[in-house]
Amino acid sequence: MKNLLTPFRMIIISYVLSIFLFSILLWLPVSHKPGIDLTYMEALFTSVSAVSVTGLTIVNVSESLSVTGVIFLALAMQVGGIGIMTLGTLVWMLFGRKINLSQRLLIMVDQNQYQFSGMVKLMRGIMLLALAIEFVGALILGTYYLQYFETAGDAYYQGSFAALSAFTNSGFDITGQSLIPFASDYYVQFIVILLIFLGAIGFPVLMEVREYFITKERHYNFSLFTKVTVTTYFFIFIIGGIGIWLLENGMYFDGLAWHQQLFYSMFNSATVRSAGLSTLDVSEFTLPTLLFMSSLMVIGASPSSVGGGIRTTTVAVMFLSLKSFALGKNDVKVFGREIDPEDKQKAFMVISFFIFGLFTAVTVISALEQGNQSVDLIDIIFETSSAFGTCGLSTGVTANLSTGSHFVLMALMFIGRVGIIAFLFSVKRKDTESHYRYPTERIIIG
Amino acid sequence: MKNLLTPFRMIIISYVLSIFLFSILLWLPVSHKPGIDLTYMEALFTSVSAVSVTGLTIVNVSESLSVTGVIFLALAMQVGGIGIMTLGTLVWMLFGRKINLSQRLLIMVDQNQYQFSGMVKLMRGIMLLALAIEFVGALILGTYYLQYFETAGDAYYQGSFAALSAFTNSGFDITGQSLIPFASDYYVQFIVILLIFLGAIGFPVLMEVREYFITKERHYNFSLFTKVTVTTYFFIFIIGGIGIWLLENGMYFDGLAWHQQLFYSMFNSATVRSAGLSTLDVSEFTLPTLLFMSSLMVIGASPSSVGGGIRTTTVAVMFLSLKSFALGKNDVKVFGREIDPEDKQKAFMVISFFIFGLFTAVTVISALEQGNQSVDLIDIIFETSSAFGTCGLSTGVTANLSTGSHFVLMALMFIGRVGIIAFLFSVKRKDTESHYRYPTERIIIG
Ligand SMILES: [K+]
Ligand SMILES: [K+]
Repeated sequence: MKNLLTPFRMIIISYVLSIFLFSILLWLPVSHKPGIDLTYMEALFTSVSAVSVTGLTIVNVSESLSVTGVIFLALAMQVGGIGIMTLGTLVWMLFGRKINLSQRLLIMVDQNQYQFSGMVKLMRGIMLLALAIEFVGALILGTYYLQYFETAGDAYYQGSFAALSAFTNSGFDITGQSLIPFASDYYVQFIVILLIFLGAIGFPVLMEVREYFITKERHYNFSLFTKVTVTTYFFIFIIGGIGIWLLENGMYFDGLAWHQQLFYSMFNSATVRSAGLSTLDVSEFTLPTLLFMSSLMVIGASPSSVGGGIRTTTVAVMFLSLKSFALGKNDVKVFGREIDPEDKQKAFMVISFFIFGLFTAVTVISALEQGNQSVDLIDIIFETSSAFGTCGLSTGVTANLSTGSHFVLMALMFIGRVGIIAFLFSVKRKDTESHYRYPTERIIIG
Repeated sequence: MKNLLTPFRMIIISYVLSIFLFSILLWLPVSHKPGIDLTYMEALFTSVSAVSVTGLTIVNVSESLSVTGVIFLALAMQVGGIGIMTLGTLVWMLFGRKINLSQRLLIMVDQNQYQFSGMVKLMRGIMLLALAIEFVGALILGTYYLQYFETAGDAYYQGSFAALSAFTNSGFDITGQSLIPFASDYYVQFIVILLIFLGAIGFPVLMEVREYFITKERHYNFSLFTKVTVTTYFFIFIIGGIGIWLLENGMYFDGLAWHQQLFYSMFNSATVRSAGLSTLDVSEFTLPTLLFMSSLMVIGASPSSVGGGIRTTTVAVMFLSLKSFALGKNDVKVFGREIDPEDKQKAFMVISFFIFGLFTAVTVISALEQGNQSVDLIDIIFETSSAFGTCGLSTGVTANLSTGSHFVLMALMFIGRVGIIAFLFSVKRKDTESHYRYPTERIIIG
């Protein structure tokens, strides 16, 4: 029995239980607006999407959910976003129990951390920091929203949900049309982009930055993880913005002022890397832009963040490995450190599994949607990448898909959020050390 | 100077020189039928396609090329297919020079071999075996074709070209419509499938099988390479056949007799893994089938064969690694041997590079073909996979693409044939051993 409950399995079970809990809460009549009924399937899809902080929907949240329903939704986003295990830790601490090794291990695994020491402190720190950021974000957006909404209650309700949706990168909205009403309000967009960054850059990064400011050390040593993920995150953000601008220059952006082009490019590059909020109807973009955005959704955000995808570090290790391999070197050096071979191995697993899963899902959905005239191949590729990268951007076809396709998307959102490493480890029976060895024999590759 | 001419670079230069040589030969008026003119671009594309044994064309070979042109084309396929370095070796041997270490290294690298000893013997063996198989194939098909063609000359001309095209997996045809005229002649299809197998299964496998029959040892030790690649090749062949049948059952196959369904499934599963000959118009297949076939083209054939793609062993190592990783094991065992970590590393490089290249190419071509109404996304995905996997199957849009897209396809065919490992190594300046080490630091992946 003990062997069956490995840390990875417990995490997966926690996610599954949360999904079922919230699916039932969202299914209850009290969660719906008068006269609206959700099928269990709709409630389940919404719950999977919320707990995996994806944001794809088959119901119109603003038209279907009551205030109670929206609060359940926000809770699901919080539980899924800041991490089931982080919340678990808080509960453990509230009950005053000393965290033992096996629970530490559990947390370490969920946040994919390697250092044991100070883990409890780290978890509490992450939780407090996340809540603080969300609170400040809600305050800023809510106060600013006073000009847009009739009552202060409405303004802070909308502002809080937007801040939560942005920081947890969950991409849900209660405006009914994402951030499109704020398409020319650059202040809102700037705050939202900032919140998206803070959620997607990785909790360890936030903790280190906080420590940097607290200690005021002149030579604070940021971890290799922080250096790699921050550099990669912003490098791809810039590439993404320039790429979208180049592809839509003269197309969708034709005739727009420079600042509109700048903000559309910037906002889309930020949101496509896991957030899922939008300031325009992405289905208006051209085919190459949608393909380019699909690849950005596949890349996603930092590990140990609210974002999904194959993650920044995986992509960084891939390119660094290709470069050092082409140069005939065995070691991968970056920022005065070497990448551990095991991490290279993990990056390989993640990329292989992700690409295989993505391609299989696209093929299966295209088979299930034979004869569905409202769905093109690019829609399937876009929605699939969006689900697996837990991004939530959509060309608008999710609701038109069949139940079979909805199950495929739910599976992708789930695995995308749990993380491929955790998912792969969850199937293993126990730590197995090989008791025997075979001779090694070379084979020809590629 | 010596450092600049690494073995990998010499191979690439040989391919480049062959391509230019044959592009000029195919451009000459003597290569064209009366009244037909090829632009240099058309000749270049044909040459790249032939030397890389791909088979994509922007000209109708049977209508444009004279007998001289067809002979040049066949020579280009032979040079590219059986291996520039194998031919090089033959030339060296004809001149009676003893092959020195650096030339041996060159051959080893081209055929991606690890064992030095007996390399020359192996090369001569491969060459003779290849020519023998082609000769027997030409004889069988030519003789059988006597019933179809008016003169014996025509029959053997057509039969020889078909045998060469099948064995080198180059996919060119001089019938004007591939093997569609033989769609209900299962004897021709059976012989062609056999020739495709022999070319795509890998030269080392053929040599070992020959040795097995010569030595008549009861316990002949086949190499790990042979076991892995033969198993994977036929396993995916069966999966491919069943997959195509499942996806087209009730669609394209609707109303066909069981034997027609069987042969269409089998032939397509065989041809899609690098051969490129066809017995039907693949554009008639449904979207999921075309996606499934694209993934089979990406997988391709064995290394050290006439086929392309990421190759069987790469796929096998990927799945075996995923399995052993999920089971928590560090070593990858198969057939009583362990996979060398360096080969795992190579598989990672090949997959990463291939997927990145493929996605970039699809996006770039879709940007170049904006407004080209005759091209759908699935066509772009299919042609791109076909070019990179040097398969040559086509939904028929290659000729409709712009010059920019043609250059992208040529680059893919070239890299696909040269092999990603060789391509990556060709950019390196010299074997570099790191003179310094950094401390290793773990980062979070996926
Ligand atoms: K999201
Ligand atoms: K081919």
